Amino acid sequence: MLISREVRLERRPVGAPVADDFSMASVELPPPGAGEVQVRNLWMAIDPAMRGRMSDARSYVPPFALGEAMEGPAVGEVVASNDPALAPGDLVWSRLGWREAFNAPAERLEKREPTLPPQAYLGFAGMTGLTAYVGLLDIAALKPGDVVFVSAAAGGVGSVACQIARLKGHKVIGSAGGPDKIAFLKERLGVDEAIDYKAEPSLTKALARAAPEGIDVYFDNVGGDHLQAALAVANRHARFALCGMISQYNATEPSAAPRNLVQAVVKELRLEGYIALSHLHRQPEFLADMIAWHAAGLIEPAETVYDGIERALDAFNGLFSGEGMGKTLVRLG
Amino acid sequence: MLISREVRLERRPVGAPVADDFSMASVELPPPGAGEVQVRNLWMAIDPAMRGRMSDARSYVPPFALGEAMEGPAVGEVVASNDPALAPGDLVWSRLGWREAFNAPAERLEKREPTLPPQAYLGFAGMTGLTAYVGLLDIAALKPGDVVFVSAAAGGVGSVACQIARLKGHKVIGSAGGPDKIAFLKERLGVDEAIDYKAEPSLTKALARAAPEGIDVYFDNVGGDHLQAALAVANRHARFALCGMISQYNATEPSAAPRNLVQAVVKELRLEGYIALSHLHRQPEFLADMIAWHAAGLIEPAETVYDGIERALDAFNGLFSGEGMGKTLVRLG
Repeated sequence: MLISREVRLERRPVGAPVADDFSMASVELPPPGAGEVQVRNLWMAIDPAMRGRMSDARSYVPPFALGEAMEGPAVGEVVASNDPALAPGDLVWSRLGWREAFNAPAERLEKREPTLPPQAYLGFAGMTGLTAYVGLLDIAALKPGDVVFVSAAAGGVGSVACQIARLKGHKVIGSAGGPDKIAFLKERLGVDEAIDYKAEPSLTKALARAAPEGIDVYFDNVGGDHLQAALAVANRHARFALCGMISQYNATEPSAAPRNLVQAVVKELRLEGYIALSHLHRQPEFLADMIAWHAAGLIEPAETVYDGIERALDAFNGLFSGEGMGKTLVRLG
Repeated sequence: MLISREVRLERRPVGAPVADDFSMASVELPPPGAGEVQVRNLWMAIDPAMRGRMSDARSYVPPFALGEAMEGPAVGEVVASNDPALAPGDLVWSRLGWREAFNAPAERLEKREPTLPPQAYLGFAGMTGLTAYVGLLDIAALKPGDVVFVSAAAGGVGSVACQIARLKGHKVIGSAGGPDKIAFLKERLGVDEAIDYKAEPSLTKALARAAPEGIDVYFDNVGGDHLQAALAVANRHARFALCGMISQYNATEPSAAPRNLVQAVVKELRLEGYIALSHLHRQPEFLADMIAWHAAGLIEPAETVYDGIERALDAFNGLFSGEGMGKTLVRLG
């Protein structure tokens, strides 16, 4: 009998989640039933959008149920299988994170090849990478010569966006908070200009200095004042891919910025929100590109790792306090 | 010798323009020179975007020069011509409004057929109509079944947008301020639902009541709280055509709204700003459609007329105080 610890949502957080909003439970897993597979999770992903599901606001995915284990991307190893398509030792991706192990019908699992390190399927080769890929290539419709601005550039999605834009030959400006992240952007990700927004009295002026030619694409992870700066510095016909607004997720009062949205009219800008889930048809081409780029040394995993499920909440809050660099992961295996 | 009165910009307005920002001058027009045409203006158009050119902010068109006559769309009749393409009596469109008559090179004039009443070429068959047409058909990419919300629906552009959306079979919700405009929207323009934003404590709630099925297209003339309400009530994949933000033009402080732009991510919305000037290639098809729709009784001019160039500033300020309905015009001829 396998014991799995899992993190349950006990009440809906107000503002930043605190420990009492959650509980840790241990459940005993029986052997997998007919058509079921038993999986021991190796890694689970932590991402800002999970904050939305902790609230009960209407969204594109239902909120987490109270008293139950939360969900999120995870990769694990098959321990036992009652399905012919999967065998012990196989690497599988699922949405059944926030727990150490589980039994699930085989159709809830996706097999992954061991071509890349397992956790890559949660990072640059997972939904995080797909978000960056679709946002730049499809939503912003990146074209030669575009100057690209990426906010939260040291984060999970941002760090992949910077790398994709770089390997495609674009000038990339990344913003992040604090000298460690700025060093990470310049040295690890190779951005052309890095803006420490915490050190800049005016983000707009800093962006205008970093991109005197203006920006053509803005990859927005942040919203708020970053979006305002991007509107101010955008060139005519610039495209903004809006993939998340981390500045808003924990907010109990809605943000007032941006105050200059009228620039979208004057400069004929296109701002488009999207979620990667709606673009899963791009998955095969995306994975092939990522594997090729990784093999060519053009993209590398950027990750912050917390060890053990008992650190999962620290990992989650670390996203918002801006502790980590790259994709935030919890190692379970 | 023809005498023409003209309105000159004497200083850049702060907030709402006042009489002292302008002067009225009389100029004597000599006979037209070689290649020139002499035109007596019949009608001039007044539109909110002119406010932008009164300031010296960088924009897609240069600011008006101080001490000179302002510019804007006008239709006039040729009085004398030194160009073989134009003859006395011809109807011509130009950007040489804010004056009663002028001499200009023939290439600054566009001949118009007398198929429609002359002032229609400043309204539903002019840049005003083209703005509505391009915004709905190209930018918002109107498709069957879309529910359409139009703000400033009783205004020049808005009244054409409502009529185009109606004649294409859409449910149309229009917003405007005051009972007279609401009656105009319902009785003259035939909108399905009219929202008097001045009478509603919550525009969002009013819009949600008018469109319980949500909105798919938002034609934004206003920005600010209207944009916020549209974001709140938008359906997934809704498209917003942003053609102007009249709530901002006279503002000395930038607006704080909308506070819920994160909805663009969650609902995968596209917000696109545009200016009709960039879509002049649509002019032939647009004019043909407008003439056909007018002949079929599907579209009608909606206009507020001020008589005489001495009323031009009243006409302009009337746009912002919300006096007029439909296109605001000054009759000169």
